[in-house]
Amino acid sequence: MDPGSADQKHFNLKTPKGTRDFNDKEMAIRERIFTTITSVFKRHGAVTIDTPVFELREILSGKYGEDSKLIYDLVDQGGELTSLRYDLTVPFARFLAMNGQKYQNIKRYHIAKVYRRDNPSITKGRMREFYQCDFDVAGTYDPMLPDAEVLKVTVEALSALDIGSFTVKLNHRKILDGMFEVCGVPVEKFRPISSAVDKLDKAPWAEVRREMVEEKGLDPVVADRIEKYVSLSGGADVIKKLEEDTEFVGSERARKGLEEMKLLLKYLDSMGIAEKILFDLSLARGLDYYTGPIYEAVFNNPADGAGYDGELVGVGSIAAGGRYDNLVGMFSGGRQIPCVGVSLGIERIFSILLRKTKLEEVKSNEVEVYVIGLGDGVLEERIRIAAELWDAGIKAEFSYKVKPRLQSEFDTCDRDQIPFSVLVGPGEVKDGKVRVKDMTDKSEENKRGVLIDRAALVTELKLRLC
Amino acid sequence: MDPGSADQKHFNLKTPKGTRDFNDKEMAIRERIFTTITSVFKRHGAVTIDTPVFELREILSGKYGEDSKLIYDLVDQGGELTSLRYDLTVPFARFLAMNGQKYQNIKRYHIAKVYRRDNPSITKGRMREFYQCDFDVAGTYDPMLPDAEVLKVTVEALSALDIGSFTVKLNHRKILDGMFEVCGVPVEKFRPISSAVDKLDKAPWAEVRREMVEEKGLDPVVADRIEKYVSLSGGADVIKKLEEDTEFVGSERARKGLEEMKLLLKYLDSMGIAEKILFDLSLARGLDYYTGPIYEAVFNNPADGAGYDGELVGVGSIAAGGRYDNLVGMFSGGRQIPCVGVSLGIERIFSILLRKTKLEEVKSNEVEVYVIGLGDGVLEERIRIAAELWDAGIKAEFSYKVKPRLQSEFDTCDRDQIPFSVLVGPGEVKDGKVRVKDMTDKSEENKRGVLIDRAALVTELKLRLC
Repeated sequence: MDPGSADQKHFNLKTPKGTRDFNDKEMAIRERIFTTITSVFKRHGAVTIDTPVFELREILSGKYGEDSKLIYDLVDQGGELTSLRYDLTVPFARFLAMNGQKYQNIKRYHIAKVYRRDNPSITKGRMREFYQCDFDVAGTYDPMLPDAEVLKVTVEALSALDIGSFTVKLNHRKILDGMFEVCGVPVEKFRPISSAVDKLDKAPWAEVRREMVEEKGLDPVVADRIEKYVSLSGGADVIKKLEEDTEFVGSERARKGLEEMKLLLKYLDSMGIAEKILFDLSLARGLDYYTGPIYEAVFNNPADGAGYDGELVGVGSIAAGGRYDNLVGMFSGGRQIPCVGVSLGIERIFSILLRKTKLEEVKSNEVEVYVIGLGDGVLEERIRIAAELWDAGIKAEFSYKVKPRLQSEFDTCDRDQIPFSVLVGPGEVKDGKVRVKDMTDKSEENKRGVLIDRAALVTELKLRLC
Repeated sequence: MDPGSADQKHFNLKTPKGTRDFNDKEMAIRERIFTTITSVFKRHGAVTIDTPVFELREILSGKYGEDSKLIYDLVDQGGELTSLRYDLTVPFARFLAMNGQKYQNIKRYHIAKVYRRDNPSITKGRMREFYQCDFDVAGTYDPMLPDAEVLKVTVEALSALDIGSFTVKLNHRKILDGMFEVCGVPVEKFRPISSAVDKLDKAPWAEVRREMVEEKGLDPVVADRIEKYVSLSGGADVIKKLEEDTEFVGSERARKGLEEMKLLLKYLDSMGIAEKILFDLSLARGLDYYTGPIYEAVFNNPADGAGYDGELVGVGSIAAGGRYDNLVGMFSGGRQIPCVGVSLGIERIFSILLRKTKLEEVKSNEVEVYVIGLGDGVLEERIRIAAELWDAGIKAEFSYKVKPRLQSEFDTCDRDQIPFSVLVGPGEVKDGKVRVKDMTDKSEENKRGVLIDRAALVTELKLRLC
């Protein structure tokens, strides 16, 4: 490259549409979120795996219903058609199908970026590149036990993040389908009608009914029967009501779903999280691959979910998941590994915590000690001291100036909230001494810190840093 | 999706060419590497930023010399031409150019995946998707001070990783170009001839000379003059020799480079890492954007760098970097922010540590306590106990079986190296008791563990887990 001519080139200085950078202070908040969530996942014995950011295109196709159009494709530059992953669930299922001999069961988490060519909206926190934090349990077990733990993990993680009061809405794909069956929805319309029901958290019934009848050609009588069910929500009371509904339990699908839901609620009660859970028949979840319980965590106070600039953004979900027993089999040629999991909506959580934080007060570096020169000719001594601190595991910095101004060094300590400094001048060097100063003590007596032996520096600092 | 028909579909069950999955045990090793490196970076006061995995294509073009053909492109699905990032340096420079008002200086690290459509080779650890671990210092400072710290970070990180004895080869773009000037290489051939010199670590001089003369049309007399210089390596002795070479110091470029190299070696001596550094005139580095010191860490015993299966793979570099003062200006229209940095070759390091490790012995989960049922009817008590442990921050699991076999629960503890179990049966429940068992104590007396009050469980476990 020729810097001369390159300088003249006009660059469109931006990140691609729907993507963004995160600066050091934003990253400090994001890393706190990742650490909190990871520690909950590990507390439950989860391990992590990694999969590539792009997959063979055929692996992703036919998994995301109406949203498959949002998949990003890579240019064919050598014979393979590949696409950026849309979520972490399908790559996980592909991994299980490939490694089924060794991984008949695994409790894994995966925190990584996924890609959707959606219409981006900063206000709504909807980006084209965003993180998902997934926790999944794969394996053949007794019914609803891993499902209960996944819900416990969801509640623990969201509670630990301290983002406001939330509820986990819970339903069951079999109850949903049983309900459609009982209401008279033709089987081929189960998924389209389900995705209409899924909009009930954002739109009133009249609008959803219009979509069912006008767009999706459902008999209006059938639609009205659905209304009776999707307005139900609660706990054991709803189970009881449905059990007494002879028409409803006439469907084997519905009966099976109800049985599992009853068992799940019992386990959730033993786990002490029943009060966070709301059995809600209007919860549908758009994805094709769910086969059992489905759930979605929402804020109790919708304002908690507001976007970057405080604007209200409906009641977006902050976590969602469910059971998907048939996905692995789609890759392995039928040999199933049942799975259940949850995905935490980290970008929404980030925007909530960002609003609660004064960004300029966030300490993004971890420096403990700043090495300051007093007067001329001590640069190499400053370097030697810094190296000695680094070698002792102490987080330290020094000014990259041969003759830094003392005031600007103090200013750096204040700006970066560095708790200690080491001061060294020609006099100290001659006497084999050094000064240690507690930067939080702004008193006149502490102005020049405490004089100590140069040889005792690391020990003295370690005592103070405990 | 219709599971019935989908099951019939034949899937090509693999990851795209040049990419791979990492399982839980491999990830445990990789996370240890990331943690070690991150802690060195943070010790030096670095903060982290994040940039998108793809960039506008024009941002990447013209930065990678002959290797630009390896860039992955995304399909144009909406007006923007984008490509996967090739390294983390160019996105960092783009970030600085975009945020120059706020980030006139920053010491940042970035650990993330980059993409190159190279010819993959598992043996050589060369993948198309791989991690880079970058540490860079941006800002206008006194000469060679940040450069010295970047080299210190490199030595600290590689030492902490415990991968074998290494040397950091060091050269200077200005010394290299001054050498070309003095030897009589025409200016327009500086970069092509430089990239021939870069191959000297893998190929003998005769072969490199052939490339220079036959492929790149260099005068053979000029090539032979180059040989004299590129065979030089050492420390202060080489500086002295070049200073006494009147022809060499006749080039202003060479003189300037030599002056900076002398200063840098002095600082590296103060940092206590001079013995790890080798000033080597044959080091060239292929990238276009370097302007000052350049460096590359290599194994002293080439076998340490061998690939997955122990096969020798030349002397591949495990870290590399340099100063690039003009890159930010290419984006900002001339307003420069000088930068210097290093990138650690994590995949090579991973394959070295993998060879040193018995993978089956790696503990990938962190479970501390396994909750075991003795006899029937204690499932809900097991769930309650597990939930209580999780709520107290203890890492715990229990079997997802209503009636698990005791032996299989013990087997799980052994397999996952879980140090403690809690045993509970109907008798214990009735008496308000529970048993705690140290799983590492295989003695007969310890067979049923120690009986304690149910209410004291968390306290007792926390004492044992300290």
